[in-house]
Amino acid sequence: MSRPVLDFWFDFASTYSYLAAGRIGALAAEAGVDVRFRPFLLGPIFKAQGWDTSPFNLYSAKGCNMWRDLERLSEDLGMPFRRPEPFPQNSLLPARVALVGLKEGWGERFCCEVFRAHFGHGRRIDEAATLAEILSWLGADAGAVLAAAQADDNKARLRAQTEEAQRLGLYGAPSFVTATGELFWGNDRLEQALRWAKRGK
Amino acid sequence: MSRPVLDFWFDFASTYSYLAAGRIGALAAEAGVDVRFRPFLLGPIFKAQGWDTSPFNLYSAKGCNMWRDLERLSEDLGMPFRRPEPFPQNSLLPARVALVGLKEGWGERFCCEVFRAHFGHGRRIDEAATLAEILSWLGADAGAVLAAAQADDNKARLRAQTEEAQRLGLYGAPSFVTATGELFWGNDRLEQALRWAKRGK
Repeated sequence: MSRPVLDFWFDFASTYSYLAAGRIGALAAEAGVDVRFRPFLLGPIFKAQGWDTSPFNLYSAKGCNMWRDLERLSEDLGMPFRRPEPFPQNSLLPARVALVGLKEGWGERFCCEVFRAHFGHGRRIDEAATLAEILSWLGADAGAVLAAAQADDNKARLRAQTEEAQRLGLYGAPSFVTATGELFWGNDRLEQALRWAKRGK
Repeated sequence: MSRPVLDFWFDFASTYSYLAAGRIGALAAEAGVDVRFRPFLLGPIFKAQGWDTSPFNLYSAKGCNMWRDLERLSEDLGMPFRRPEPFPQNSLLPARVALVGLKEGWGERFCCEVFRAHFGHGRRIDEAATLAEILSWLGADAGAVLAAAQADDNKARLRAQTEEAQRLGLYGAPSFVTATGELFWGNDRLEQALRWAKRGK
């Protein structure tokens, strides 16, 4: 019997996706579930809801408590945390690079490194230099990868992935979707999503 | 040394407040924390954010998944669940009654019964008949309590409580606030809020 699969949908500018990315590897291994990393862009989805930036910026009390919450949770998890400025940053380029990496085998490590650079160390992820540094660290050819990321076919793949997210009813990140289409929203649902993936319904 | 205290802020029309109300008694007892039930009205707070109804109605993908999430979570918890119609319902009257009850000693049981009637059995909580039935069940004089609930001083107390919620930076329900002012939002943060209340910082 094949192993159960869980789709992990995330946006690199999403704060709680950082926590989920940091946790999902060990938890999925323990649960015996294979995870598919699915980067997408929240921007078009937020725009369709009438928002032109993160709801955490639009609703200041909510945003204020979100940063405190993230600080408390990352401390509990032993994960580094540093609030990036500005927030949110354009996640288009890292998402495109991630799609290249997920075909080439270093994608998951790249995703986790981008999240750690961004929310663990406050680095800019909308600048090619940060991504090139991570790519080199992973042993990839940064120049070639960045060129492949910006090629038309790869741009189209990210658009298609974002449209798929919209069709699945995703409205935030992280989200988890089982093979049967069960949708879970938020880092807080990761354990439950893995249980559902495992029991296959 | 006095026992640690955690304020439990909720609105009777809030779906996740139902889950928190069902869980908080046993968890707080286990943690050795005293809980103060603080009913308030989300309506004025949502209005200040530019919303004239629940965000779950304004954002349909989010609302759709919220009901599914609630169904899954209540099943895991062994709590009954039935989606009330309409949603949200005006929670003004039960909140006023709860304030009377919290002075008289039957308030917490009343709150839990209202939540169970509403989200466990789909009953209307904006109708005096439902509340009268619960009051009688608790051994209170329904007519006298409903009159006291609608008295000017009690109405003013609920307004003051809602204003306090706003001052504390509350933007949703349930919320938990420790004696040191640490704010936690959402049923998912109940355990963490109890740990913070306990360590007193």
